[in-house]
Amino acid sequence: MKNNTFQEISAVLAGAHDVLLYPHIHMDGDALGSCAALCKALRAAGKRAYILLEEEIPLNLRFLDRGCCTTDADIFADVDISVCVDCGDESRFPGRKEAFRRGKTTICIDHHHTTSSFCDYNYVDAEAAATGELIYQLLLEMGTKPDAEIGEALFAAITTDTGNFQYSNTTKRTFEIAAALCDWGIDSNRVSVELYENVRPQRKRIEAKVLETLRLIGDGQGAICYMTQDMLAKTGALAEETEDVVEQMRSISGVEYAAFLKEQEDGSVRVSLRAKRRGNVAAIAEQFGGGGHIKAAGATLRMPIDEACALLEQALLASIQKLPPLQK
Amino acid sequence: MKNNTFQEISAVLAGAHDVLLYPHIHMDGDALGSCAALCKALRAAGKRAYILLEEEIPLNLRFLDRGCCTTDADIFADVDISVCVDCGDESRFPGRKEAFRRGKTTICIDHHHTTSSFCDYNYVDAEAAATGELIYQLLLEMGTKPDAEIGEALFAAITTDTGNFQYSNTTKRTFEIAAALCDWGIDSNRVSVELYENVRPQRKRIEAKVLETLRLIGDGQGAICYMTQDMLAKTGALAEETEDVVEQMRSISGVEYAAFLKEQEDGSVRVSLRAKRRGNVAAIAEQFGGGGHIKAAGATLRMPIDEACALLEQALLASIQKLPPLQK
Repeated sequence: MKNNTFQEISAVLAGAHDVLLYPHIHMDGDALGSCAALCKALRAAGKRAYILLEEEIPLNLRFLDRGCCTTDADIFADVDISVCVDCGDESRFPGRKEAFRRGKTTICIDHHHTTSSFCDYNYVDAEAAATGELIYQLLLEMGTKPDAEIGEALFAAITTDTGNFQYSNTTKRTFEIAAALCDWGIDSNRVSVELYENVRPQRKRIEAKVLETLRLIGDGQGAICYMTQDMLAKTGALAEETEDVVEQMRSISGVEYAAFLKEQEDGSVRVSLRAKRRGNVAAIAEQFGGGGHIKAAGATLRMPIDEACALLEQALLASIQKLPPLQK
Repeated sequence: MKNNTFQEISAVLAGAHDVLLYPHIHMDGDALGSCAALCKALRAAGKRAYILLEEEIPLNLRFLDRGCCTTDADIFADVDISVCVDCGDESRFPGRKEAFRRGKTTICIDHHHTTSSFCDYNYVDAEAAATGELIYQLLLEMGTKPDAEIGEALFAAITTDTGNFQYSNTTKRTFEIAAALCDWGIDSNRVSVELYENVRPQRKRIEAKVLETLRLIGDGQGAICYMTQDMLAKTGALAEETEDVVEQMRSISGVEYAAFLKEQEDGSVRVSLRAKRRGNVAAIAEQFGGGGHIKAAGATLRMPIDEACALLEQALLASIQKLPPLQK
């Protein structure tokens, strides 16, 4: 797969009037932050641009909207360019596929290693810690002027996808971009408070309920938790408010693999997987038709939650047996 | 107060043979990480150097030791230089004051704004996010060669004192140093795993149990949680493993006052109090014979936990009614 250059992508964008941006479904800080930064930069360059969504924005990401988001696929009569951001393929924007294809030109900017060139223009760099890093480079090529709001959207993208600069995907480039964004006038602490310190009480309640289900397996190297629709009903929480749980599971001493199973409204089970240092959860997710990164992946299982838990337990135990020895 | 230069401090260190380093008591990642980096750099420069401690190293900081730490104040017959690191005054190393003064020359390197020049050589910069930033600059002056272990100690210092680059003390310099340390061959994720992913499962279990007791009062402006000895017994957790809970309570949207009540072994109740922005919990603690700071205080009540909860609820409600209006 050969990437286009940011120069080529910038040139294509420069020739457009109306642009629609597509973050992936179950949007996270990187998907929406990257889109918000690019949307603002396109508007600053005189384009009409919107981020097209098919779902509500999670509470802690709403500060990124700033008038950029719409759910109206017909907001422009003609769309010159559709840009999907942080999306490995069209299944990542399932309710917006048709709209996406209506763009006269399509562009993909992503950092998932499973992404293939499915657009007219593609820039996929699995070495990037966040798609926000790639958008930053694109904006430099576009000549975007330093801007605090754009910088804060990029900071939100990068800080969330690197676990606040703690994950192994964090590189020198990540820190260099964060340093450069300081010159854009960003208030990184304000971003952080929006992202992390606006917790609904329902969130603490569902976290507590889910952590009560914590089970350690494989000599403490595997951790499994689950969430049911009943727990959501009893706590009044939203499913997205459990997103930190899998990270909390991984933080347990000795745990190498964490699996968090969430019963969906339609009865299917969404599995979030994490590896600490030596494991590969992309491989586990792929066994169940899912995918993702080596240290963070996911899959959807169509079976009752108790069966899914049993299945994941077996998969984790098998993976634990294959772990390379821990290096000191 | 006038600082010496890193050039001067480097020259003094260059003339020494035996150096003892002093992190503050109740050491944190910045204090021990900064000391470890300087200790290793001094040894690389041919000096004999140790970090002198008066307490056990916390579990999650033990990886920083690497043969640098001692509790033997007489490890050297003569100490050329005593260096205190991240310490505002001698009260920060109370059991090691005498040993410190035995150094023929004393040096202070710190970033607390309350620190005065109490040593022969001083470098205090309250703009630095971490003392680790200052040690980095000193090492450059000393000509320390890039080294992964030294770099990881500095990374540990900086990432802990900036709340993983999220606190408002984080600056462009912070990110620039982190970027530079990547060239030293650091494995920042390994550091992060040591620091943060060494949580006992019992801790997650007791946190879950305590958060299940969360009650919001006064229109969501007050939060109350409690812990019983029975909960500790059932989870196998230690009482100190609940120390983060009151901070989690304060992070809830709308909560101004948080009270966390812990039943002690003797049946008394220890109350931890927090205020977010407008409240004064020192005043509440004083009502019960306790004390502390405006935003963090505590008291001990000699009554059953359910009575203590009822009493605290009344005290919080009274304080909530007196709150000044929220400024946007």
